[in-house]
Amino acid sequence: MTETRFAPQTDKAETETGAILRPKFDADGLMPAIVTDADSGEVLMLGYMNEGALARTIEEGEAWYWSRSRQEYWKKGATSGQVQQVVEMRTDCDQDAILIKVRVAGNGATCHVGYRSCFYRTVELGKSASAETKLSITQERVYDPKEVYGKD
Amino acid sequence: MTETRFAPQTDKAETETGAILRPKFDADGLMPAIVTDADSGEVLMLGYMNEGALARTIEEGEAWYWSRSRQEYWKKGATSGQVQQVVEMRTDCDQDAILIKVRVAGNGATCHVGYRSCFYRTVELGKSASAETKLSITQERVYDPKEVYGKD
Repeated sequence: MTETRFAPQTDKAETETGAILRPKFDADGLMPAIVTDADSGEVLMLGYMNEGALARTIEEGEAWYWSRSRQEYWKKGATSGQVQQVVEMRTDCDQDAILIKVRVAGNGATCHVGYRSCFYRTVELGKSASAETKLSITQERVYDPKEVYGKD
Repeated sequence: MTETRFAPQTDKAETETGAILRPKFDADGLMPAIVTDADSGEVLMLGYMNEGALARTIEEGEAWYWSRSRQEYWKKGATSGQVQQVVEMRTDCDQDAILIKVRVAGNGATCHVGYRSCFYRTVELGKSASAETKLSITQERVYDPKEVYGKD
């Protein structure tokens, strides 16, 4: 992995309080990207960007990711129409995570399962954490992927 | 790494639409956890949980993480007072990420640099992504760590 496009991390204070982007990618060259709805603030998904995906997102203003399963660049919405227009991008103190606030095009869903957000299920709290820990679905689907794509 | 506490992932549909938590940890046994303010919705930080940290968070209702730098459990707020009371926990479609909505105790800051959120800087968009890509600080510090702890 070569990371030559962005400035490197050298000094902790510069990374934490400086005015230059110095992204730190993990051993696989990736950085988690939190995606929220720019209007409602709802967390929509967590994706991963490599250096190229981060650069494309900054330059084009639409979200690009690196697909870990397919090992290829992934322009969100290229096939589904659920393009993410980036209204704002943020990085965190140690610059190893990205937050983007987006407006979603197409049918407004983000999740391939058909929901507005990938986080459509709550986890039951306050009981023993076990193989019985329960989830509850709290959203209505925006669309049914079976009907649109003929598959799950 | 052994993951014996929670139910395993077996079938894709069960993972995506089922009613049982089946967390998928990465090769290091970790899962990213997005943390938002339960009242304002603001994204506060991104932490990492291993199986034990996730279990403690579910059972105690206060956020635990695994510190990658110190390689130890980390009860958020144990030293700073910035304890995170978990109001709601969610997982995503493939159950490899967690979202917790929290109320922050103590001085209300989350970031060790002194800000309410770790995402206190915006990234300049729409220009060439380079070693000159700019950040802008958009929050006021809640406190100055130098004054509280005598160090950065």
